[in-house]
Amino acid sequence: MAETGGATGGRRRRGGGRAGAAARRGSAALEQMPWNPPINIDRPIEPLTEEGVQAIHDGAMRILEEIGIQFYNEEALAIFKEAGVKVEGDLVKMDRDFVMEMVAKAPSEWTITPRNPDKTITIGGKTMLFGNVSSPPNYWDLEQNKKTAGTREQCQNLLKLTQYFNCIHFAGGYPVEPVDIHASVRHLDVLYDKLTLTDKAMHAYSLGKERVEDVMEMVRIAGGLTHEEFEATPRMYTNINSTSPLKHDEPMIDGSLRLIRRGQGVIVTPFTLAGAMAPVTMAGAVAQSLAESLCAVALFQYVVPGCHVGIGTFTSNVDMKSGAPAFGTPEYMRSTQMTGQMARFYGLPMRASGVCAANVPDGQAMWETSNSLWSAVQSGTNMVYHAAGWLEGGLIASPEKFIMDCEVLQMIQRYMDPSVNATGPDEIALDAIREVGGDGHFFGIQHTQDRYTTAFYQPFLSDWRNFEAFEQAGGVWTAERAHKKFKEILADFEAPPMDEAIRQELAEFVERRKAEGGAPTDF
Amino acid sequence: MAETGGATGGRRRRGGGRAGAAARRGSAALEQMPWNPPINIDRPIEPLTEEGVQAIHDGAMRILEEIGIQFYNEEALAIFKEAGVKVEGDLVKMDRDFVMEMVAKAPSEWTITPRNPDKTITIGGKTMLFGNVSSPPNYWDLEQNKKTAGTREQCQNLLKLTQYFNCIHFAGGYPVEPVDIHASVRHLDVLYDKLTLTDKAMHAYSLGKERVEDVMEMVRIAGGLTHEEFEATPRMYTNINSTSPLKHDEPMIDGSLRLIRRGQGVIVTPFTLAGAMAPVTMAGAVAQSLAESLCAVALFQYVVPGCHVGIGTFTSNVDMKSGAPAFGTPEYMRSTQMTGQMARFYGLPMRASGVCAANVPDGQAMWETSNSLWSAVQSGTNMVYHAAGWLEGGLIASPEKFIMDCEVLQMIQRYMDPSVNATGPDEIALDAIREVGGDGHFFGIQHTQDRYTTAFYQPFLSDWRNFEAFEQAGGVWTAERAHKKFKEILADFEAPPMDEAIRQELAEFVERRKAEGGAPTDF
Repeated sequence: MAETGGATGGRRRRGGGRAGAAARRGSAALEQMPWNPPINIDRPIEPLTEEGVQAIHDGAMRILEEIGIQFYNEEALAIFKEAGVKVEGDLVKMDRDFVMEMVAKAPSEWTITPRNPDKTITIGGKTMLFGNVSSPPNYWDLEQNKKTAGTREQCQNLLKLTQYFNCIHFAGGYPVEPVDIHASVRHLDVLYDKLTLTDKAMHAYSLGKERVEDVMEMVRIAGGLTHEEFEATPRMYTNINSTSPLKHDEPMIDGSLRLIRRGQGVIVTPFTLAGAMAPVTMAGAVAQSLAESLCAVALFQYVVPGCHVGIGTFTSNVDMKSGAPAFGTPEYMRSTQMTGQMARFYGLPMRASGVCAANVPDGQAMWETSNSLWSAVQSGTNMVYHAAGWLEGGLIASPEKFIMDCEVLQMIQRYMDPSVNATGPDEIALDAIREVGGDGHFFGIQHTQDRYTTAFYQPFLSDWRNFEAFEQAGGVWTAERAHKKFKEILADFEAPPMDEAIRQELAEFVERRKAEGGAPTDF
Repeated sequence: MAETGGATGGRRRRGGGRAGAAARRGSAALEQMPWNPPINIDRPIEPLTEEGVQAIHDGAMRILEEIGIQFYNEEALAIFKEAGVKVEGDLVKMDRDFVMEMVAKAPSEWTITPRNPDKTITIGGKTMLFGNVSSPPNYWDLEQNKKTAGTREQCQNLLKLTQYFNCIHFAGGYPVEPVDIHASVRHLDVLYDKLTLTDKAMHAYSLGKERVEDVMEMVRIAGGLTHEEFEATPRMYTNINSTSPLKHDEPMIDGSLRLIRRGQGVIVTPFTLAGAMAPVTMAGAVAQSLAESLCAVALFQYVVPGCHVGIGTFTSNVDMKSGAPAFGTPEYMRSTQMTGQMARFYGLPMRASGVCAANVPDGQAMWETSNSLWSAVQSGTNMVYHAAGWLEGGLIASPEKFIMDCEVLQMIQRYMDPSVNATGPDEIALDAIREVGGDGHFFGIQHTQDRYTTAFYQPFLSDWRNFEAFEQAGGVWTAERAHKKFKEILADFEAPPMDEAIRQELAEFVERRKAEGGAPTDF
């Protein structure tokens, strides 16, 4: 009871200050943390014993050696043959010596330099990066309160959030699929929007050679780069999914080969839903996921030794009652941790996600997303896809969810700040404790005042007022507050600067390629 | 895009099954996990270096040696004098040798045996226990949608949830303060309700000798125990707070001494809000918290060597804009982890909490609560107070929040199940992967069917249906679904069996003590 008594006291003491704070929080100028990709200082959670690591590794290798992977890509099959790998039709069986020899060529850490070099990101090591939700075909927000197919305007608005928040470090896939643009030219319009509305690291979908080549060219133009400069170091990346179980599709492999041959990055992320496209047991689903990613990594390293790759995990479980995918579950968390442990075993950068099954940005959405984000932290994940804005298992993008997630991402960034657990004499603060003694209060003393603004995480969305102040302000729940912030951010938004000649060149490229018909849609 | 494509496919495949599943989930019979207190198999997160541990330990010891703690309890002062500890008025200064000698007498692990011995709990080691929200003066639910002072009926309803959910392992303080019962007899009525509505480990508030003695007697009667049997092993416990900074109050010390002398348990939990009752720096707040708890532990171990104690942490930060307490913050998480590391250093069981600042059971409530619960996991916490039902920094108890939290607690319980990360041949499942090959699906195969019901966590509150099914069912957000479950559980509820003679004896004890006037309210 002293606990809640103390809390009440704390509220009473500075009830006045609360209102002022609320006013500041309510203003359009959103106080957010600076650009500062977190360095994950926690020792990863390792659910696997040494024997467990070996068992999963052996399982993955035996899948590659005994069962094999189908590559629906003629060039890949030819390359494997040339490499002396056993190829039966489109089935490729590679022994573990070849796989491990190739995997060993991959760098454990590399960078992506976007058109704004200040937003250069490091993939690998202890760096943790967050990206926007990618690829939902649908959009939901509190105002329309229904699920509709994505539009270019909605995609642009979500790109503005991607740029606005410093805790979003890379621009992943389309934050919502703008189905109001014809598929043949969609990549041209969206990349124009992405490159003009954001200055962060870019992604290309590997969906046919024209799209991949167009995006690489547009990223080169936006960066004001010569072809040589573009190829000198990664300026962008692609993320490919295998077609689980045990298949790699034509366009994904083709796009990856095009990128690595020009020095760009590739993340290989199987989508192995345990009980559907993978074994119902998580260790089996992880082993299969690793087999599917490592065989592609081996191919890429054979073609371009030392090329920039990473492996992703998208291993979750289905709802056994319905077969629908579940996210942020205990099984999802463990499989992510296991994959992280294996990624360190292979010396490869690791990608995971911020995901949920919830349909609206409510309590369930946030506990599922928190589970997935904390498992990303616990697994030593380097790139967190879908870190902001994801709903309904990735079928819906929501701006409210995007903004709510950014509050959690900022807290993770702050959680990784070494000052929080510093233990020098100034932090032990014996003199401050002596000064206050048994009857004083710490709020007014110099030790506190010196640290007033930096001591603690300052939220931009959380409502920390007491219930009475909360009620007086209309009793606005989190999702509704997030919607208000969304409108404020759109009103505030300023696109990052771009040289007019470059913008012109980009626009002309888009026009020319549209005139040429864009990309075929028959793949 | 393959990711979401896969998800859509998964949905389509068994759209029918979803409806059936939904119906089952909607039924009143709530599928929950069995009684099975989790064993925390994760290595704790340790934000402190060896030097950091020593720095905080040295800080705590110097607080006790140089600054001292005020004990507003004559008996304690006399005992300290007898022990040769320096006592100046009510200020006690004890050197580290004495403190560490006494702390070393405390068992690192002990049990509490409630009236139902099947619900015996272990305090310490790797066991993680969850308790109901304790001590909010107010109640909120979605139906009344306003904050009101707690009543006996609301308290009873929350006690029914405490009993109903197997993931709640002990009955902490009053889940809401029933202010409609006069303070002099409140403990009698609520303990009668607690002992008849639940059969889980009991707690007593240390708020005056009459209350403590009454509760011990009622727990003895409810257990059908002789005085000797009651004292043979802990049957209950108390949790006391120091009055930070650096003070221990009369009734809390008095109650603790009464309990330990009769073999019962005591948890000492300072409430050190960084920036208010403790230094603004987390390491300092943790050092002060440890000083405040360890001096009480030393007293208790001197009086009854080997008595059953634990230390709690309630170190969070204030909102520097308002002075109000914040919960589930990055600073809260690190201070909890640091305290866990120190608790292991001292060999004492550890208590933390499931807390939030949010006023309603929305997204903010769940990310703040998830942060605090995961920090409890990461810190190796043994007892998690307020694990279900807490809102507004502990000023509000909510049944919806209680039920939402229980879903998260069940996921933590499942997360700790070693089967999730097992790596035997059956889990690697090479034969299943071989059987399905590149073109099949895992749902129908024997390996999956054999594990159909046990493979994954089954939620009771989460809505995993797709948006269309969710919308068709009324688009009900989490808090509203939780309210429906609340009503279903109350309708379902059956009190645990109790021998009628024992119930009679309890009722008579309550009547007699009421006739005697209960407990004074002038402390």
